[in-house]
Amino acid sequence: MAEPLRRRLPLLPLLLLAAGGLRAAERSGGSSSAMEELATEKEAEESHRQDSVSLLTFILLLTLTILTIWLFKHRRVRFLHETGLAMIYGLIVGVILRYGTPSTSGHDKPFSCSQEDRPFTTLLVNVSGKFFEYTLKGEISPGKIHNVEQNDMLRKVTFDPEVFFNILLPPIIFHAGYSLKKRHFFRNLGSILAYAFLGTAVSCFIIGNLMYGVVKLMKLVGQLSDKFYYTDCLLFGAIISATDPVTVLAIFNELHADVDLYALLFGESVLNDAVAIVLSSSIVAYQPTGENTHAFDAAAFFKSVGVFLGIFSGSFMMGAVTGVVTALISKFTKLHCFPLLETALFFLMSWSTFLLAEACGFTGVVAVLFCGITQAHYTYNNLSVESRSRTKQLFEVLHFLAENFIFSYMGLALFTFQKHIFSPVFIIGAFVAIFLGRAAHIYPLSFLLNLGRRHKISWSFQHMMMFSGLRGAMAFALAIRDTATYSHQMMFSTTLLIVFFTVWIVGGGTTPMLSWLNIRVGVDPDQDPPPTNDSFQVLQGDGQDSARRNRTKQESAWLFRLWYSFDHNYLKPILTHSGPPLTTTLPSWCGLIARCLTSPQVYDNQEQLREEDSDFILNDGDLTVTYGDTTITANGSSGPHTATTNLDSRRTKSSSEEALERDLGAADHEVTNRGTRLVFPLEYNA
Amino acid sequence: MAEPLRRRLPLLPLLLLAAGGLRAAERSGGSSSAMEELATEKEAEESHRQDSVSLLTFILLLTLTILTIWLFKHRRVRFLHETGLAMIYGLIVGVILRYGTPSTSGHDKPFSCSQEDRPFTTLLVNVSGKFFEYTLKGEISPGKIHNVEQNDMLRKVTFDPEVFFNILLPPIIFHAGYSLKKRHFFRNLGSILAYAFLGTAVSCFIIGNLMYGVVKLMKLVGQLSDKFYYTDCLLFGAIISATDPVTVLAIFNELHADVDLYALLFGESVLNDAVAIVLSSSIVAYQPTGENTHAFDAAAFFKSVGVFLGIFSGSFMMGAVTGVVTALISKFTKLHCFPLLETALFFLMSWSTFLLAEACGFTGVVAVLFCGITQAHYTYNNLSVESRSRTKQLFEVLHFLAENFIFSYMGLALFTFQKHIFSPVFIIGAFVAIFLGRAAHIYPLSFLLNLGRRHKISWSFQHMMMFSGLRGAMAFALAIRDTATYSHQMMFSTTLLIVFFTVWIVGGGTTPMLSWLNIRVGVDPDQDPPPTNDSFQVLQGDGQDSARRNRTKQESAWLFRLWYSFDHNYLKPILTHSGPPLTTTLPSWCGLIARCLTSPQVYDNQEQLREEDSDFILNDGDLTVTYGDTTITANGSSGPHTATTNLDSRRTKSSSEEALERDLGAADHEVTNRGTRLVFPLEYNA
Repeated sequence: MAEPLRRRLPLLPLLLLAAGGLRAAERSGGSSSAMEELATEKEAEESHRQDSVSLLTFILLLTLTILTIWLFKHRRVRFLHETGLAMIYGLIVGVILRYGTPSTSGHDKPFSCSQEDRPFTTLLVNVSGKFFEYTLKGEISPGKIHNVEQNDMLRKVTFDPEVFFNILLPPIIFHAGYSLKKRHFFRNLGSILAYAFLGTAVSCFIIGNLMYGVVKLMKLVGQLSDKFYYTDCLLFGAIISATDPVTVLAIFNELHADVDLYALLFGESVLNDAVAIVLSSSIVAYQPTGENTHAFDAAAFFKSVGVFLGIFSGSFMMGAVTGVVTALISKFTKLHCFPLLETALFFLMSWSTFLLAEACGFTGVVAVLFCGITQAHYTYNNLSVESRSRTKQLFEVLHFLAENFIFSYMGLALFTFQKHIFSPVFIIGAFVAIFLGRAAHIYPLSFLLNLGRRHKISWSFQHMMMFSGLRGAMAFALAIRDTATYSHQMMFSTTLLIVFFTVWIVGGGTTPMLSWLNIRVGVDPDQDPPPTNDSFQVLQGDGQDSARRNRTKQESAWLFRLWYSFDHNYLKPILTHSGPPLTTTLPSWCGLIARCLTSPQVYDNQEQLREEDSDFILNDGDLTVTYGDTTITANGSSGPHTATTNLDSRRTKSSSEEALERDLGAADHEVTNRGTRLVFPLEYNA
Repeated sequence: MAEPLRRRLPLLPLLLLAAGGLRAAERSGGSSSAMEELATEKEAEESHRQDSVSLLTFILLLTLTILTIWLFKHRRVRFLHETGLAMIYGLIVGVILRYGTPSTSGHDKPFSCSQEDRPFTTLLVNVSGKFFEYTLKGEISPGKIHNVEQNDMLRKVTFDPEVFFNILLPPIIFHAGYSLKKRHFFRNLGSILAYAFLGTAVSCFIIGNLMYGVVKLMKLVGQLSDKFYYTDCLLFGAIISATDPVTVLAIFNELHADVDLYALLFGESVLNDAVAIVLSSSIVAYQPTGENTHAFDAAAFFKSVGVFLGIFSGSFMMGAVTGVVTALISKFTKLHCFPLLETALFFLMSWSTFLLAEACGFTGVVAVLFCGITQAHYTYNNLSVESRSRTKQLFEVLHFLAENFIFSYMGLALFTFQKHIFSPVFIIGAFVAIFLGRAAHIYPLSFLLNLGRRHKISWSFQHMMMFSGLRGAMAFALAIRDTATYSHQMMFSTTLLIVFFTVWIVGGGTTPMLSWLNIRVGVDPDQDPPPTNDSFQVLQGDGQDSARRNRTKQESAWLFRLWYSFDHNYLKPILTHSGPPLTTTLPSWCGLIARCLTSPQVYDNQEQLREEDSDFILNDGDLTVTYGDTTITANGSSGPHTATTNLDSRRTKSSSEEALERDLGAADHEVTNRGTRLVFPLEYNA
């Protein structure tokens, strides 16, 4: 299982660099005679040249994509997204490379010599008295010995799959975390978490089981020529459960579609990537002991669950911790006077999250996601204005390049990858399975969520979410990571087709679907939906301040209230220059620490309401909207009919809630005194 | 000669990524038994973890450096520059790694088997029926067979030298080209070219010969234990002639020291890097035929000169061509409506220069430099305001990270590099030689240049230039590129010490030196020096417009006038939105093409003088200052006594000059009509 396709995917021509390392690696075939040295030198130069050409191919592809995207955007063409376009260009170049270049055979005749027990990772070879060091590249099946260096050009354009995981995904995922529209994200956090965790698990399980049925069927009709275990099916379920509605979200953004729907889709896709990665690692880790290595084993299952929880929480912690450390550094130094230093520090710290997580055995990509969220929530507030735009733009460019690179590579891989296994039955089964899996994930969960949600997820939203289950970069990266066995090769080919189909067809159908489902477009992202909107079942309240306050508390889950008050009273003041001074929130015996940790700006901030960053990252403006899925609207007309009854029951609440309530009350009545960046809805006091 | 130190410098933990590729590479030692697979898996994970830790070390170093730099800047400490600081931290970590970590020996016992003739780059090994592929890593001297994997940690922190050339130098060099202060650069272009080409060649030759004397001496007193040829000495001369006054320039920038001195120093250091690279390649290419492989051979010498000219001009062309293509694309598409696409395109095109040059066998780093200059001269003008700051900031961050990484690596390398050869005689000789080489480069050339320059290079400037001959990233990268032989190892160790010494001592002495030499600080970079300044021997003229115009032409070399008029009349209008409309500059029979190529903005621009980009990149403001080394000052009081005599002689000039003259005259009298972004000195018409 752990045999990756290294034998076919040679030393990667490094993405962000010149691939020149190969020159050094290969020209070192120095030998006694000068003629031979020259020959090796020439070969090395040839190889270096080919590396450069293959990278140039990708750059040309991306340049073409950019120019065509511009043309499309210029002419407001929306049926094809840039990623779809990148895939098409990739396909074309793939066809040319596959059928247009001559098949060159390797320069060196392979040399065989028997070794005893198991292969060493390092090999010393004695050549007429000189010693040479070799490193292990991978195993080769005996039938393919003479195919190893078959087509140099195809070899050169084939990247090491780890490149996707370790170079291309991190900037994409970090950018997703860093650019989460916080207010709408937190407003729907409960639902997003439910979709991401429960939904992905359900989807993975259903797809896995359906595919196992398909595999059984294939075995019956003799379509299966090698082993395909139940764990392989489950792995396929995990891989293909990572949705990536990049094309849909781009159109949403452009048309200013409903912000809540956007938040639900974006939040779900971001978090379910993390879930899918960890889920697939857990499934790989599922190794029952004893003879029956592919049957159900309770111990192994619980071990897998433990692995899932451990990796996920560990990665989460890593990301959060580096984010917090960056926030502290940027708060307590006056680094914001030197934006270059600040940006460099921000970049290094964010990158170190990845390495730290990998060094500790967690998942770097997941850590980077949570680091991005933490950086956006805390560090961003401490940055200078210039660094805010710098960091945003830097990661935007990296994300753009990485994403389009992956999609154009996908197009290329359809023709240049040499171990495709296309099984029609499996592919049709997979399409049906992902449809059913998505349906079983969206509709029942939405029904359950709507029981608890005031701001219901309407049928049109559910249909749109169902429709937006595109698969993209993450599914590809997970699938290409291991293509050593028959089952994995079939899964990879199928994943590729699913990505193509969903990106082209579903991406192209987004605009018609939006209008067919009557989903609002042209919404101001800072404005909440009007209470009379058909899509929402908003209850009309009495609109009184006290009642709303109580309703807010009543509706929000206690966990979020607890978190909010902790974040607002302690974390924000400690980590950023905003929030109430710690001298007022901490007990009096902590006076000295509180004074040290509270930045002078906090006292200044008390005098003014700063709204500058309310769009990109909303600070304490989340006050009224952070509490779960509430529906305080701009005209203050919402509120439950049961508000007054809860007014009495709240006296029985715990002390932490009392504190929160005090805080709320204080914020309500003394907004100019406490004034800690609270951004209320426009007509809050109307 | 072409045996790099691959054997000691293992597969690089990739700089910009997570080094995770190794996991795939090494865990593929899959074998028949599950136990063994697990063992290999564990080993691979351990290796991956170590990679992450070693990268984390560097990130920690850079973070520390950033924080300390901030502290220094905050407290206005100027005696130690960030690069010097990065080296100190590198040194400390190097000491810890060298003496603090236990010496672990390799896990795998090396396996020897005799091979026939020469080592293959690929090796197939038969292990109990399974075939494994190995790649050649490098030769190992027989005595060190058991040392190969001696210290894993030291191995891990040692990068492939090609990383410096292919990853770290390009952003540094591109940024240098992109941020050349154009006006002052072009004003001193003649002198800068002379210093860079002639000066570097002189310096290389003198240092090479002096070092050959030192080597002879060492041979006499028995200090030399292996071969050290004349070509090695010349190579050392080329390597060590690449100056990098980064610390001096940073202080100049901070103190706003004289802009001309800044331009001379910066321009020289940027261009002499390019010259030094190509020079060292040419010296390596100097291979006399026949028996006497290390004596002088006229044919080989001229071949080397040909190689130099070929590589230099080829790289120059590559850089210029991609710059021009980018300018054309950005002009003729409305890409500037989408800054993200624009920035991405800019980045990709600039990177493709590097790959294109490498693919064609030229030098990518040199191509990138000229690409940067072209991008700044043309493309920059077509970019949207947002993209201008984006591209500038993006490359600034990359440059900052790459530079500090190299310097901290240098500190580390002093202790972790395991093949140092410190020879006191050679080191002292090298210090004397670089001092004499620099002196023989600066003073005679300045004397010759002053014969032709109106705006003389004063003694204090010459002393400052002499003093600022620091060595930095480029010398290091050139020296570490090949450390296979005894002579190269000695050269590398010596280069490292020279870099340390010059960066710390010379960098720290800049501020005292500036005040000791009475060099002006606090100069507004857009203001020309006052004519009464002691440092300048400015001739007082009659101040009449016509006389000045003539003098300007008389003083400027005809080559630059030709270039200027070509650039202003044809290139600028074709490649950017500025300059005069082509319909007025091209002959009338080209009317159609002229109308197609001229952008509508040009006609708009005729109405207004746009000065917005006059600081970072000055467009046609170069008009009065581009002409060689002239001294038109802000108060218009300069001018030669011989102006009127030249007034008559100019009638004999060629037709192209007549055209230029017309253009000049037109610009002079019809500035509001032609108004093509001309930015004149403040009191031009006073």
